[in-house]
Amino acid sequence: MKVYLDNSATTAMASEVIEAMLPYFADEMGNAQSVHSFGQRAKAGIEKARREVAALINVAPTEIVFVSGGTEADNLAVRGVAEANRERGRHIITTRIEHPAVLATCEALETNGFRVTYLPVSGKGLINPGELRDALAEDTILVSIMMANNETGTIQPIEEIAGIVAEARARGLDNLYLHTDAVQAVGKHHIDVRELGVDLLSLSGHKFHGPKGTGALFVRKGVRLGKLLHGGHHERDRRPGTENVPGIVGLGKAAELARTLLDRRIKRMRELRDHLEKSVISRFDGVRINGDVDQRVPSVSNLSFDGIDGESLLIALDLKGIAVSTGSACASGSIEPSHVLQAFGLSREEIRGSVRFSFSAFNTQDEIDYVLSVLGGPRTLQKEMNPNEGTESLEAQSRGQS
Amino acid sequence: MKVYLDNSATTAMASEVIEAMLPYFADEMGNAQSVHSFGQRAKAGIEKARREVAALINVAPTEIVFVSGGTEADNLAVRGVAEANRERGRHIITTRIEHPAVLATCEALETNGFRVTYLPVSGKGLINPGELRDALAEDTILVSIMMANNETGTIQPIEEIAGIVAEARARGLDNLYLHTDAVQAVGKHHIDVRELGVDLLSLSGHKFHGPKGTGALFVRKGVRLGKLLHGGHHERDRRPGTENVPGIVGLGKAAELARTLLDRRIKRMRELRDHLEKSVISRFDGVRINGDVDQRVPSVSNLSFDGIDGESLLIALDLKGIAVSTGSACASGSIEPSHVLQAFGLSREEIRGSVRFSFSAFNTQDEIDYVLSVLGGPRTLQKEMNPNEGTESLEAQSRGQS
Repeated sequence: MKVYLDNSATTAMASEVIEAMLPYFADEMGNAQSVHSFGQRAKAGIEKARREVAALINVAPTEIVFVSGGTEADNLAVRGVAEANRERGRHIITTRIEHPAVLATCEALETNGFRVTYLPVSGKGLINPGELRDALAEDTILVSIMMANNETGTIQPIEEIAGIVAEARARGLDNLYLHTDAVQAVGKHHIDVRELGVDLLSLSGHKFHGPKGTGALFVRKGVRLGKLLHGGHHERDRRPGTENVPGIVGLGKAAELARTLLDRRIKRMRELRDHLEKSVISRFDGVRINGDVDQRVPSVSNLSFDGIDGESLLIALDLKGIAVSTGSACASGSIEPSHVLQAFGLSREEIRGSVRFSFSAFNTQDEIDYVLSVLGGPRTLQKEMNPNEGTESLEAQSRGQS
Repeated sequence: MKVYLDNSATTAMASEVIEAMLPYFADEMGNAQSVHSFGQRAKAGIEKARREVAALINVAPTEIVFVSGGTEADNLAVRGVAEANRERGRHIITTRIEHPAVLATCEALETNGFRVTYLPVSGKGLINPGELRDALAEDTILVSIMMANNETGTIQPIEEIAGIVAEARARGLDNLYLHTDAVQAVGKHHIDVRELGVDLLSLSGHKFHGPKGTGALFVRKGVRLGKLLHGGHHERDRRPGTENVPGIVGLGKAAELARTLLDRRIKRMRELRDHLEKSVISRFDGVRINGDVDQRVPSVSNLSFDGIDGESLLIALDLKGIAVSTGSACASGSIEPSHVLQAFGLSREEIRGSVRFSFSAFNTQDEIDYVLSVLGGPRTLQKEMNPNEGTESLEAQSRGQS
């Protein structure tokens, strides 16, 4: 049995998404900038997708800029605001738990005349809105705070944050914009941008059953935004390059599905997650859920297993066909402890023992039961379920290897 | 009958490319950065594609950086070199006929402390290598000259240009790099980077039957290159963001086909182009081929029709199911004369009368014959072929509308 529980890394494309894209590979392969009918049909496909993406987050289609993914969306938001507004101010506020696409962009801006405040988070992974209020300065031009964290799913109080930004604007900080990286929230959480009051929002297709290599940045009408790439006048002059027509069409279909199926998908993911968490916690001692258990998207369960090495557990599970990830991003073999869990205040041991299980609505109860059977637990249960695997549970094996 | 003769704008994906991509949409949908086997299989798909793209232009796989398309490749090359070498020099040499992705990037750099020399071209569209030699200065860090022009297919003498750059390096200009935008040449022209001697080369998947939203930049080992996007450590730290696995796999397959079928495809395109050109020239007075007739890729025929409005002809052909383009890029309704044909020294009338027919190996002789029949020509021939269309040929109609 193959069980994919790494849906925060990427998801399988929905069959409806693949179906929607197929015609645009060969028959309807026009360049959307072309005047002739091949071009016009490609353009129509893009504009339909734009309406779908806009509807998913309740904004105007003209406020959607299609880009190549979440990383580009975040870069365009942060650097785009910084460069277009550098004469108005050079202070940016973000958090310590952002995705590298935001953090590394901020760090690059720090070497280029900008000042960046990195807000800490509590042990549950939440920022303190009061600290944001205190950090706002005369020359703050951007607040960039992620909606849902990629490692733990923790949801920041964006509406409250937007209220603080609005207050600051009201008392004269009128060059201030609010960006949220919603890559891990879209398709897993109700998002109404008009209610939220953000100025920019990043999303990525492949995180909610759309195609890789697609994404969008919502840019509220009137936001002063610089360009990341130079070239033609595509995307209302915000993003040049021949549009990835099939990719955009697929993103549109994924957005349509996410909007129409959102409640059902959330319910499904929550059931699967709760089933896994409850069972694991009841079977093992020393398991804790990382991040706020209430304020989080239903797609992620980040667990620390006391005394276990997460990497070893990952590999042991992989041998059984189960894909999960560790809290830490593992680049080129060297394992650096997760900057997110460090910011949560976890010890190195707790970080080392953390594993991220991440769900999609395509997962099933049977899959979770299989994972639980492989994880084992109390000896008797363990022995019964894996008669050929010896008496050691994976848990015990992982302890041995750690 | 539908005839697509706008293959310089974009091409249909080869069926083999679609087939190669399909498994990576849902079953093999891993994130190539993931440690588990889903991730490893995605990574294997990417590395196979990297070898294919490298083989197509004869470079090492480690010298290939996957990006989201030709525009990003050009931006990464030009701005990447400029920013990483700005303390070594601030002079760039390019041409007046580059793609906007290069021109607009250069223009942006001019507002940021760089000096740019835009080389003119002859009436046939070729730069004068002597003028390049004269333009090189102590602080020149980059020469960026396109391989084949997107409007006319004219091929610049890149090997000779590389020789001049090598000479300049030998006499002390050792901070100098040579980039070529080969987006319109790859898959239509023999390219051996080791023979050519360029340091950076841009290519785009959708121009040779690969997927839109894919491209690559060849970066010779040792080239100092800044980053366009910040984030994770993908692509040897040159381009962050979750890899577009299916797209990259498709680009790899397109590269494999382009390499193995190159001679056959070139022959086919040349036959189709020559057939069209000879027939059109023999039937109409006042038709000229724009750009050097020998130094060009076989995929493009840019013709000026004396006294005809290209846009009107485009629209008339479109009504007959035939897709072509005008020399000018037409953005948001306003028609600006082509900067390329202006640089060639064409009059406004000649530019207005220009039409680009661009071919792929998927076109057929029958399609060209259909286009010729629709174009009409001598009255008698015209009447016979379009008995229901009245006595006016499209040519005459276009003259009327112009």
